Amino acid sequence: MTDTVVRSSTPAADKRTPAGGAPTAPHSADEAHEPRIDIDAVGAMLRGTWGETRLTVRELLKDPAYWRVDGQSVAEHRERVMGQVRLLAKNSGSTRALPKEYGGDEDNGANLAGFEELVVADPSMQIKAGVQWGLFGSAVLQLGTKEHHDKWIPDIRDAKLPGAFAMTEIGHGSDVAAIGTTATYDPETEEFVIHTPFRAAWKDYLGNAAVYGQAATVFAQLVTKGVNHGVHCFFVPIRTTDGELLPGVQSEDDGVKGGLNGIDNGRLAFEHVRVPRTNLLNRYGDVAPDGTYSSPIESTGRRFFTMLGALVQGRVSLDGSATIASSLALHIALTYANQRRQFDSGAGTDEVVLLDYGKHQRRLLPLLAQNYAQYFAHDELLRTFDGVFSGRVDTPAERENLETLAAALKPLSTWNALNTIQEAREACGGSGFMAENRLVGLRSDLDVYVTFEGDNNVLLQLVGKRLLADFAKQFKGADAATLAKFAVGQTAGNIFHGAGLRRLGQTVADFGSTARSVELGLRAEQQHELLAGRVEQMVADIAGALRPASKLPSDKAAALFNQHQAELIEAARAHGELLQWEAFSDAVKGTENESTRQVLTWLRDLFGLHLIEKHLAWHLINGRLSTQRGAAVSKYIDRLCARLRPHAQDLVDAFGFAPEHVRAPIASGVERQRQDEARAHYADLAARGEAPIPEKSLKKKK
Amino acid sequence: MTDTVVRSSTPAADKRTPAGGAPTAPHSADEAHEPRIDIDAVGAMLRGTWGETRLTVRELLKDPAYWRVDGQSVAEHRERVMGQVRLLAKNSGSTRALPKEYGGDEDNGANLAGFEELVVADPSMQIKAGVQWGLFGSAVLQLGTKEHHDKWIPDIRDAKLPGAFAMTEIGHGSDVAAIGTTATYDPETEEFVIHTPFRAAWKDYLGNAAVYGQAATVFAQLVTKGVNHGVHCFFVPIRTTDGELLPGVQSEDDGVKGGLNGIDNGRLAFEHVRVPRTNLLNRYGDVAPDGTYSSPIESTGRRFFTMLGALVQGRVSLDGSATIASSLALHIALTYANQRRQFDSGAGTDEVVLLDYGKHQRRLLPLLAQNYAQYFAHDELLRTFDGVFSGRVDTPAERENLETLAAALKPLSTWNALNTIQEAREACGGSGFMAENRLVGLRSDLDVYVTFEGDNNVLLQLVGKRLLADFAKQFKGADAATLAKFAVGQTAGNIFHGAGLRRLGQTVADFGSTARSVELGLRAEQQHELLAGRVEQMVADIAGALRPASKLPSDKAAALFNQHQAELIEAARAHGELLQWEAFSDAVKGTENESTRQVLTWLRDLFGLHLIEKHLAWHLINGRLSTQRGAAVSKYIDRLCARLRPHAQDLVDAFGFAPEHVRAPIASGVERQRQDEARAHYADLAARGEAPIPEKSLKKKK
Repeated sequence: MTDTVVRSSTPAADKRTPAGGAPTAPHSADEAHEPRIDIDAVGAMLRGTWGETRLTVRELLKDPAYWRVDGQSVAEHRERVMGQVRLLAKNSGSTRALPKEYGGDEDNGANLAGFEELVVADPSMQIKAGVQWGLFGSAVLQLGTKEHHDKWIPDIRDAKLPGAFAMTEIGHGSDVAAIGTTATYDPETEEFVIHTPFRAAWKDYLGNAAVYGQAATVFAQLVTKGVNHGVHCFFVPIRTTDGELLPGVQSEDDGVKGGLNGIDNGRLAFEHVRVPRTNLLNRYGDVAPDGTYSSPIESTGRRFFTMLGALVQGRVSLDGSATIASSLALHIALTYANQRRQFDSGAGTDEVVLLDYGKHQRRLLPLLAQNYAQYFAHDELLRTFDGVFSGRVDTPAERENLETLAAALKPLSTWNALNTIQEAREACGGSGFMAENRLVGLRSDLDVYVTFEGDNNVLLQLVGKRLLADFAKQFKGADAATLAKFAVGQTAGNIFHGAGLRRLGQTVADFGSTARSVELGLRAEQQHELLAGRVEQMVADIAGALRPASKLPSDKAAALFNQHQAELIEAARAHGELLQWEAFSDAVKGTENESTRQVLTWLRDLFGLHLIEKHLAWHLINGRLSTQRGAAVSKYIDRLCARLRPHAQDLVDAFGFAPEHVRAPIASGVERQRQDEARAHYADLAARGEAPIPEKSLKKKK
Repeated sequence: MTDTVVRSSTPAADKRTPAGGAPTAPHSADEAHEPRIDIDAVGAMLRGTWGETRLTVRELLKDPAYWRVDGQSVAEHRERVMGQVRLLAKNSGSTRALPKEYGGDEDNGANLAGFEELVVADPSMQIKAGVQWGLFGSAVLQLGTKEHHDKWIPDIRDAKLPGAFAMTEIGHGSDVAAIGTTATYDPETEEFVIHTPFRAAWKDYLGNAAVYGQAATVFAQLVTKGVNHGVHCFFVPIRTTDGELLPGVQSEDDGVKGGLNGIDNGRLAFEHVRVPRTNLLNRYGDVAPDGTYSSPIESTGRRFFTMLGALVQGRVSLDGSATIASSLALHIALTYANQRRQFDSGAGTDEVVLLDYGKHQRRLLPLLAQNYAQYFAHDELLRTFDGVFSGRVDTPAERENLETLAAALKPLSTWNALNTIQEAREACGGSGFMAENRLVGLRSDLDVYVTFEGDNNVLLQLVGKRLLADFAKQFKGADAATLAKFAVGQTAGNIFHGAGLRRLGQTVADFGSTARSVELGLRAEQQHELLAGRVEQMVADIAGALRPASKLPSDKAAALFNQHQAELIEAARAHGELLQWEAFSDAVKGTENESTRQVLTWLRDLFGLHLIEKHLAWHLINGRLSTQRGAAVSKYIDRLCARLRPHAQDLVDAFGFAPEHVRAPIASGVERQRQDEARAHYADLAARGEAPIPEKSLKKKK
């Protein structure tokens, strides 16, 4: 491992000066004689509110003990990761969020920030830590009460009691309310009987279930006195400290997975397993010794969502983790793209640096802009989370906001991570496919982030429903005439009149220089108007289309809703993109250094225009952009890419990854060294008069 | 392994009848009382010209000896795959293309068809076979002459002489002409001296290089009498039969990769390694004992491309392989989507089958349509390839066509494979992430198909240049007035007048029922006009934009070209899509059975509309579609998805995969069995009066 670090370390200063050969375009802000960003200041912006914690964790992760070792067997990798989690426990990995009485800092934001950083060492270690403390531990902490905390939290904290979070079943993933496992109260013995009634009710995909888990927080239908009170969570011991399964507990190994193979995912089933009445994690629902059920939350629906809502931190932290993993991929691909040369330019100079190719800029720079947007949006999400979980602003409305925000951002950033890492891997060609260069490993491990802790499409549908509900609230109490007027103005039947055109001031700007008019007409306010207008219009259109549903029989209503499911998901995505854009713009506004603000403004514009280009057909169809301005969007993106090209290295350097975090030989400067060696060889041949004459030039002489 | 097959096997008839619960929509053509496709006939269409060979190979692959075993170490997997290649050699895996005198069938099309099928067993085995016979063996066969064939082909054929194809270097992947390895002729000893002058000239990513290879076909700059005659290929022994490296040969292991870990990829370097003069594979260039160079091809450029062109079969076969791998993923995801249920519909019936969700249809059915298009396009490519390589139509023009066709189709199908497999994996949720369900393994292994045998973007750029050249030919000899007229009519400055509108007969169709007018206005001819018109217009626009280049200094000209690189690649992609659409349409036209033709027409329409939707902004901006018709495209796709939904299972059954090819438990019918068991459990509870009462309904009673 030490060897890798040596290969990776390159003096930062060296990155600024291209070695030999006239560049075909400026490769750095210095060369371009342009204002440079303040790399350290931008780094601090990206690290955000809990930057100190992030720096502490990154320092910790310089220790090779936390690094992934490629090529280990599944068993070796699992053992290594279990050891890493124990090591993290010794290094404050598990205490940041805990109450003071359990040795904690009661700092929920810092806890997630620190957790998110783990992804650069090994995503398996990250998610294993997440299973132990973020899911299993959090279930005990958030759904249990003091007795439970006193009894189990210290051992969970220290990773002495590894546990599984047993919610998902083979038959029910996203639809938790429909799980089949039952916990039936027996007043005779004052015990709950945990039971798996059929194969589809086996708990599945649980980290710690196959090998290491000694207990599980099991979600089951609570039945007492013949009544099913819905899903509740129970603390159920599953193995002895020696790893022997307890009577009535069955376990199966999920085997090899597409990634995260350092985690021992598996299945669990319970054959009338008895646990004491007090093993019910009873914060939101309890059963008295005689079997009487009680809950502080009357509505069964709200009770269910409150229990599940306590677990929102998984989604919040995946948003941050996916963002960091994407940055690492961009750091690797852009650093390499700034050094690697391929093909003669035809202009008789040196071979062309990859990032000078128009297509290469187009593939990577919009993803960099998107990645920046995610950082700023994530910090807002994390602050919202911290506000709720610290109790500072823990209102039902704020909880709902938090859940919607997490459900909107997690899908976008986890999907973007897969796209970004894949584009980075392809941009590095064959070397991108080598495990030592990290990209393929990151992609494999991050793959499941898009369907766990809430399938991305299911989450976006939740956001879409929330948007529809908010939309409907606007019209509460409105009379029929208002509604009708609204319907005429807004719904899909009537979108072809180009109502949006004037609002963008296009008539004015379309005269004069095209380039200039485009930039005038696609600046911050217009980007915002286009992005926000799209969300509003889409929601209004869907609401209009669904209006007849209230008068239809339920099967017909369901069918109508189903017809618009894809659009609703698309509207939710548009909403998430708008939130990211707004967060980026707020960050730009708050930047004091003028050079930095200039470059970040270009980058924010690239993000905005990239979104508008992605949905260009929508903007054209709905009359939000004229075809002329629509045609100009792509050209403006090209110009922004060229403008940002000299700043690319600064912008990825601002992520602040040390060689110990990167560990990818292709991003270490070795490529440039090889080119220098090759150049020196050819120069030496020429100097000694030993360079062979090309056949082609020989023919010309004849 | 046997166990897996047992779990996978389900009577085909069983798939037609949903077990229990009224479906929310017809799940099969039978239920929908619709004409069904003739599954066997469609299967034969998909298998294409060399269907018999495909059936033979699929039969062979039912033997578990060829299957991938998940969770093997890299060393075990490599050993297994080497053994599989030897087993293939014993079962006609290597002889189909060989000349009769070496025991072959001289059937190039059959050879690639059989090779492509291997992907369902283990892509590592496929690519290892490709290295041995398609690259190493083909280099000897295509670039060598009789002496070479007699000496080496029998042992290569029998996998007794495993070899590496040493073309790519660390420093030069796509740009083969610039490689650094030299082969300098020494007339004293009548030997070539193979030498690696610097680190960047190490050969890299070569299958068989790390462990098993005993020889390599090494591409090097041929230098004799002080003249460099460009890249030629040499047969260079590298290891003894005991696996010891020969003197002067160095090898390094590439280690773990993102996939294809059954192949021992590695690096090779040569320290003044001497081989006999006759080890030059001398079909296209030779050196006499005295060092005099000769070649049947005068032009160095054409000679180089002729040598490389002999290797086009790699690209051809990857197009077919990617298509088959995508089918397997679609078979798995759609079969599961037809069985798996999740979430109550709200209509009081059973939970909803995944494929009844609008979004689920939208995610998978357009990919199915695309996959069908790829089959038909691939068969055309394969016939073109066979025509050239059999010598039947081996003209320079046809070779150029073949190369352009391969360069256009391979990028599309290999990228589509990654998208399709990923969408399939996400559509299967957590179970899609389990290696036993195949999807993650297929995706990892197929990943490198997009950058090897020609990086996809580089290939598309070649296609783009060919399109530009063809375009320019039209105007050869045209006078200035014609050109000027053309420029005014076609180029980017003048695209806003909606010239394309009338040609599509929109004015007529825009009256009357929207649904009907859309279908009338987006039928086959219109789809073709839109897709073909886009290619023509894009090429014309780029040609127009590049016209000033001829008058610019070379660096400025290069910069101008670079500005349009991304557009040129996009035009090439559009060209490839058009070819796929045309091949699909030809196949539909040739279908005699009326029911089959009807369903395939819908599927072809879905493919066409899917392409038009993907590039909708372009069609709107360039006046090819009105905004109204543009808005209708998505709705038409929704309707086509709903129409095809009952045929989805038939359409994937037509791929003809047996349980031994699928081997994914989730596509085996086990999901339905589990649902039946759960239903029976709840029914039994209810019958015995033991079903707990939901708390919610209890409250209502009060």
